[in-house]
Amino acid sequence: MLQTNSEQFKTYLNKYQDRARLLITCPDQQGIVAKVSKALYEHGANILQSDQYSTDPSGGTFFMRVEFELPQIEKEKDTLEQSFRKIADQLQMKWKFSYMNHVKRMAIFVSKQDHCLIDLLWRYQSGDFLCEIPLVISNHPDLKKTVESFEIPYYYIPVNKVNKKEAEEKQLELLKQYQIDFVVLARYMQILSPEFIKHYQYQIINIHHSFLPAFVGARPYERAYSRGVKIIGATSHYVTEDLDEGPIIEQGVKDVNHRYNVEDLKRVGRTIERDVLSRAVQLHLEDRVIVYKNKTIVF
Amino acid sequence: MLQTNSEQFKTYLNKYQDRARLLITCPDQQGIVAKVSKALYEHGANILQSDQYSTDPSGGTFFMRVEFELPQIEKEKDTLEQSFRKIADQLQMKWKFSYMNHVKRMAIFVSKQDHCLIDLLWRYQSGDFLCEIPLVISNHPDLKKTVESFEIPYYYIPVNKVNKKEAEEKQLELLKQYQIDFVVLARYMQILSPEFIKHYQYQIINIHHSFLPAFVGARPYERAYSRGVKIIGATSHYVTEDLDEGPIIEQGVKDVNHRYNVEDLKRVGRTIERDVLSRAVQLHLEDRVIVYKNKTIVF
Amino acid sequence: MLQTNSEQFKTYLNKYQDRARLLITCPDQQGIVAKVSKALYEHGANILQSDQYSTDPSGGTFFMRVEFELPQIEKEKDTLEQSFRKIADQLQMKWKFSYMNHVKRMAIFVSKQDHCLIDLLWRYQSGDFLCEIPLVISNHPDLKKTVESFEIPYYYIPVNKVNKKEAEEKQLELLKQYQIDFVVLARYMQILSPEFIKHYQYQIINIHHSFLPAFVGARPYERAYSRGVKIIGATSHYVTEDLDEGPIIEQGVKDVNHRYNVEDLKRVGRTIERDVLSRAVQLHLEDRVIVYKNKTIVF
Amino acid sequence: MLQTNSEQFKTYLNKYQDRARLLITCPDQQGIVAKVSKALYEHGANILQSDQYSTDPSGGTFFMRVEFELPQIEKEKDTLEQSFRKIADQLQMKWKFSYMNHVKRMAIFVSKQDHCLIDLLWRYQSGDFLCEIPLVISNHPDLKKTVESFEIPYYYIPVNKVNKKEAEEKQLELLKQYQIDFVVLARYMQILSPEFIKHYQYQIINIHHSFLPAFVGARPYERAYSRGVKIIGATSHYVTEDLDEGPIIEQGVKDVNHRYNVEDLKRVGRTIERDVLSRAVQLHLEDRVIVYKNKTIVF
Repeated sequence: MLQTNSEQFKTYLNKYQDRARLLITCPDQQGIVAKVSKALYEHGANILQSDQYSTDPSGGTFFMRVEFELPQIEKEKDTLEQSFRKIADQLQMKWKFSYMNHVKRMAIFVSKQDHCLIDLLWRYQSGDFLCEIPLVISNHPDLKKTVESFEIPYYYIPVNKVNKKEAEEKQLELLKQYQIDFVVLARYMQILSPEFIKHYQYQIINIHHSFLPAFVGARPYERAYSRGVKIIGATSHYVTEDLDEGPIIEQGVKDVNHRYNVEDLKRVGRTIERDVLSRAVQLHLEDRVIVYKNKTIVF
Repeated sequence: MLQTNSEQFKTYLNKYQDRARLLITCPDQQGIVAKVSKALYEHGANILQSDQYSTDPSGGTFFMRVEFELPQIEKEKDTLEQSFRKIADQLQMKWKFSYMNHVKRMAIFVSKQDHCLIDLLWRYQSGDFLCEIPLVISNHPDLKKTVESFEIPYYYIPVNKVNKKEAEEKQLELLKQYQIDFVVLARYMQILSPEFIKHYQYQIINIHHSFLPAFVGARPYERAYSRGVKIIGATSHYVTEDLDEGPIIEQGVKDVNHRYNVEDLKRVGRTIERDVLSRAVQLHLEDRVIVYKNKTIVF
Repeated sequence: MLQTNSEQFKTYLNKYQDRARLLITCPDQQGIVAKVSKALYEHGANILQSDQYSTDPSGGTFFMRVEFELPQIEKEKDTLEQSFRKIADQLQMKWKFSYMNHVKRMAIFVSKQDHCLIDLLWRYQSGDFLCEIPLVISNHPDLKKTVESFEIPYYYIPVNKVNKKEAEEKQLELLKQYQIDFVVLARYMQILSPEFIKHYQYQIINIHHSFLPAFVGARPYERAYSRGVKIIGATSHYVTEDLDEGPIIEQGVKDVNHRYNVEDLKRVGRTIERDVLSRAVQLHLEDRVIVYKNKTIVF
Repeated sequence: MLQTNSEQFKTYLNKYQDRARLLITCPDQQGIVAKVSKALYEHGANILQSDQYSTDPSGGTFFMRVEFELPQIEKEKDTLEQSFRKIADQLQMKWKFSYMNHVKRMAIFVSKQDHCLIDLLWRYQSGDFLCEIPLVISNHPDLKKTVESFEIPYYYIPVNKVNKKEAEEKQLELLKQYQIDFVVLARYMQILSPEFIKHYQYQIINIHHSFLPAFVGARPYERAYSRGVKIIGATSHYVTEDLDEGPIIEQGVKDVNHRYNVEDLKRVGRTIERDVLSRAVQLHLEDRVIVYKNKTIVF
């Protein structure tokens, strides 16, 4: 069942239908906040929250996130964007309005492990995540029943060395068909090709089962065990061409000790992974993340 | 030795001499951000950071903290404040400019325990705290040598039931004489009178050795032990007439277990207390805390 | 479907069928460890882990948990217990052997909120919890479908002021019928009567949605919001006659700030609650908790 | 002033003069606990705490730490060790008794940064650390005054490429002269030679300013900043020939975000470093750490 049809969602859409967020990246200079807030104000917008950050007030880069309310935004948004474009051009901005009456559409990719998947679906169903999950794609058939119990279609697309290109084409087609905005890899154990990634730049969120940059690559819990670390972690990041090197969105850790064997580390790790991934997805859904030079500004 | 005379401080003062922070509380309404940022911009100010929060966009209360740079601020500040007053009146603001070329002057009150005191002095000496500590006042002579090794005057003012009023008068006189901006109670084991507190409203920071509101009052570690809690904590708050009931600035916790006796809890607690108090002092020094209805907004 | 029938469980039972745990409470005195370990050794047991704690070596109380392996334990256990009784009597012990070939049987009580329930069921299904969950009892019909998707019977027993006694009798009958060892209140919003509790002394685990002893009683998140705390928490404890006053098993916390309204606190709180409750259940399942004077020793 | 002369220490020595700890490593096999506890019991020892761990009950390695009290231990210890040797040989043990009436003697090595040093000295002075600190050695003169204010001798031994061997000989001579048991590198910015390390195998504790194995080597905070991590950490480990690769004793972390520049990371890092190093020193002082295959068992 699409969440969009639930009572909870209708209430939400009703409450937030006139809200939007504006994300900005530009060279730092005097007067940005004044010009942006004036432009919004003159259009009748009420600023609800505004965050900003500058790498350096002299010659650095400036970032801003504004959440605002504008009555009848659906009718006004073209005019708003048009007039904003002038300021934006003048200040050399990269900018994006994100309207809350568009409910983001998220696809989940999984393999066999279910802990991240279930946490995402639970937060979705409970209304913590204000998004739509129109489908789940997997390279294994195992989690079909779990996903379908949430009334979400499950697509089983096997991937191997031979058919990888073809499989990704099928996946992309499905994402297009379901008008997916972003993809969450919930312990999906396949490496996506650079071609695939290009279609969803900084719109694919992965969970790596280590505290990056420690234990980049395969079998991090085995290696954490061998090294005898006293804390383990997980890292959620946007997927880029460089494996495990994408911009970090969120990290989490837990204490361990010598009594934890590899299985215990994995068990504790599952709890960290699901929490970190869900927090990262929440931040992405709320348009709180700006990527800059392979790092994230998280407002 | 006054920090102000050190090389580090001169560098700091030089770097930040044209910076200021503006703190605002007012009824929420459309256009506040636009009007405030426009006013600053028109005076030639460059906004470096701006944070805001509203209890409710319709009919709630709005809070804002702006950090900005304004060339030759020392000369400009009267004009700035004068012209700002117009907007402020119009929007029914409580407001305050805080100029970084005024180095805040902090007094520390201690009794016999040294852990919070030493942490504050270390952060002061290391340059983490951009403030002046012109004196330490104690109701015991024990920590005189420690304080004087930092070349800070130590005033021993005994307090008992009989002389309490007189002692507080002496303390207030010293605070006045040394032009103290705010007071930190670093495990000062005397209750300040309402008269004393009135002189420094929301300018007296205390550390309570429990995770408030658990274990309000005396002997919190003994009571934590009796209750068998698995986590202990500490709370830093502004001092008000109601003991342990003032607005909370910062809290911290650590895990404990059945092996911790009361002495162990106190030992672990000391580490929490000093960290929490130092973080609270840091927030206060950076003008990040606004008090509203006995709670804090911490930007 | 009973977990006992799964492949995972068969593997587990096969692996651990000869394992047991021994829990001891007695007056401290010389030679306890020596006598206990000798008794086990002479019976052919191999001690795998041994933990102990004494409130005070002179005149205090001594606690011990031993995990051991004894070939063909099922046949040996009567002899073992018989001969152990002699030492136990001599040392005035309270003692209990817990055999791992007996899979503990856990009942879950829920109301309308599903987060703790789902976490428990997920850990059960994933094999993290080595137990059986033969039934779920609720005073509301809402979670029937969720529970039944795990192939676990769901009993809807409405409770109100009038029928409370009768309802509890029905519950007790079901617990008896399903041979339940212990009960987990997964946000069950009814207070159990002292009569009910007597049947399962220190065998009923509750999750309270605050960092006890802060916010004992109803509406803790609302009160945390009013007080303006910077950290919220949850507490898992054994249920006793005194509401929220039972022995604490486990606690957990998360940082919050002024931006969190009551709904946000509840949302974050749900994550803490489910984690804390699941950790407490895990500790109970592994026979790691000894209750003494309304506190817990957790080995 | 030597702590040994203080009232606190006399009380301590008086209280613990008959206590000892026994550390054991041996091939796992049946009956170890029974044999060890029997041997201690027969000598009149009262076991206060006993911890053990086995990598694998069948064919693994077994570790044990026993803390016990034995009246007039000073007179009895030779007999005790002699008779224990028989069991030890039979079970192929590596073993060591550590008597608490011998107060461990710790040397601190520092360079210019004072945060770890001050924390160690404060914990020493406050009685948290039950040890003696007879000297501090530094390759810089800067912290002489700080150290001497604790009445501890400060030896300034410059180290450079040319004189390194000679400098280490001087250091070793001082350590011998002051009968030093173990060395703490409190942000000592020189690499010790393998020759030096051989003299104090697993008796040199270092603090590395990153969450190892992330950011092995130089400038970890700069690299953490570049990578955009959301958590930073510190690691305390025993020094071995392989830089930053020694057995990890303790780790700690704190959350950071995009607003933290390199200086901020260093500032927060200092708090983590001092806490982690002090916890590691505490564990070492209490004989809680056993090294095995470049990892630690921490009881």
